[in-house]
Amino acid sequence: MINKKKICLQWFKDLQDLICNTVIDLEKEYDSRAKFKSNKWEKGEFRIIKGSVIEKGGVAFSNVTGTFPKNFANQIPGTEKKRSFWSSGVSVVLHPVNPHVPALHFNTRHIITGKNWFGGGIDATPCMQDTKLKKYFHSKLEKMCNDHNKKYYKKYKKWCDEYFFLPHRKEIRGIGGIFFDYKMNDWNSDFEFVRDVGLTFNDLVREIIRKKMFKKYTKKDKENQLLKRGRYVEYNLLFDRGTKFGLNTGGNVEAILMSMPPNAKWK
Amino acid sequence: MINKKKICLQWFKDLQDLICNTVIDLEKEYDSRAKFKSNKWEKGEFRIIKGSVIEKGGVAFSNVTGTFPKNFANQIPGTEKKRSFWSSGVSVVLHPVNPHVPALHFNTRHIITGKNWFGGGIDATPCMQDTKLKKYFHSKLEKMCNDHNKKYYKKYKKWCDEYFFLPHRKEIRGIGGIFFDYKMNDWNSDFEFVRDVGLTFNDLVREIIRKKMFKKYTKKDKENQLLKRGRYVEYNLLFDRGTKFGLNTGGNVEAILMSMPPNAKWK
Repeated sequence: MINKKKICLQWFKDLQDLICNTVIDLEKEYDSRAKFKSNKWEKGEFRIIKGSVIEKGGVAFSNVTGTFPKNFANQIPGTEKKRSFWSSGVSVVLHPVNPHVPALHFNTRHIITGKNWFGGGIDATPCMQDTKLKKYFHSKLEKMCNDHNKKYYKKYKKWCDEYFFLPHRKEIRGIGGIFFDYKMNDWNSDFEFVRDVGLTFNDLVREIIRKKMFKKYTKKDKENQLLKRGRYVEYNLLFDRGTKFGLNTGGNVEAILMSMPPNAKWK
Repeated sequence: MINKKKICLQWFKDLQDLICNTVIDLEKEYDSRAKFKSNKWEKGEFRIIKGSVIEKGGVAFSNVTGTFPKNFANQIPGTEKKRSFWSSGVSVVLHPVNPHVPALHFNTRHIITGKNWFGGGIDATPCMQDTKLKKYFHSKLEKMCNDHNKKYYKKYKKWCDEYFFLPHRKEIRGIGGIFFDYKMNDWNSDFEFVRDVGLTFNDLVREIIRKKMFKKYTKKDKENQLLKRGRYVEYNLLFDRGTKFGLNTGGNVEAILMSMPPNAKWK
């Protein structure tokens, strides 16, 4: 029998390194020597960079085990008999300096209760309209999804649009992407898909940021970016499932709220 | 029979004017001509100022009626037979420019379901330690409470400390104050108390801000203020009952989130 936990842990750690290196390479191309600061805690490691390309970026690996609180467990599959869980994952949030570069968000995770499944997604939050970028971003995700299953892209894109929606504002958060959860078709092909999602995100980070990081912007553009970040904060604190999961399962608060932007504004 | 609704509405509107005038007077003393911008909507009016003393301040009056959603109603007294409600209140959040001035927050409200009650409170969130200010602030609240009932201050102070607590950070939000809810002892004396809470807040605004608004501060002080505002945002979006009440009862999102600071930072 394959050791699912071990395989996942190794991949998530490798992916954390990979994405950090991509970000550092971009900083170097920009003539910045910014580095990630590592924060280790008993259940993981989150790394934060404050650079010239990425104003604040967080790349977190975690491996949390425990028991779900009762009134949280009933929202989670496979907890009918026992409320214990094993979870591991990587999550990334990049808040760029340049308002032309969208904020990029990614997560993949494996969770084991009485059942076991994968979840995750990739989405982008620009603060400036760019139809070409949106097309490029989605075509890349579509292509990757199609390599695994022709039904995935449509399904996971829809899920993403529904998930990253701010009901109180009646606004979608960004330009969407893909989102999936409770994925438990076949472990091996699910894991392959999850790896591909990670690698595709890594490519997107490099390609999208490189294309835009030198573009000129105005004070007004930056102002708009900070207002958009306000919405990001609202979403994360009011609705994000990862935030709720983390705060409900004794996660590290600094690691959970690593996704907060470096700064934000409200009108 | 006295018309409770009419009396409350009149008082809450008058109080809104009173507090706005106090803030404008402070701006004038600072040689600023900042004015409130009024935003009227079908269920109230919120006024926002962006001044030289108050970086962003909101003073809102609202009068919302409707029916509670089922799974929200069971948290509210007097909804066993009918889920309809009438509510009115004033709420104020002042985010000062000067980090020596604490952020000040106030709310009073009257809610009618099958039962009817008052709720409200006053609290302060400094980002710089000042034992003298804390003492002054609390002694003023204690004195006001004692004029009504010798038991109020202790009870409402404790309630405030428990309410304005960030469990995920294990931090209290500020220096506390008073907080009360479901107050339904005797309508007339409850209303008198609520009026006194409003007038006391108005006095505190004038006295605390006037004392501190000219003090010199450093870049580092301002930075700390923005980080403290980040905590304020976390509290309001993750825990604040007023925010939840508003978003669950079809309140105006701009009015509800008027309490957001003009800007905030996260480390």
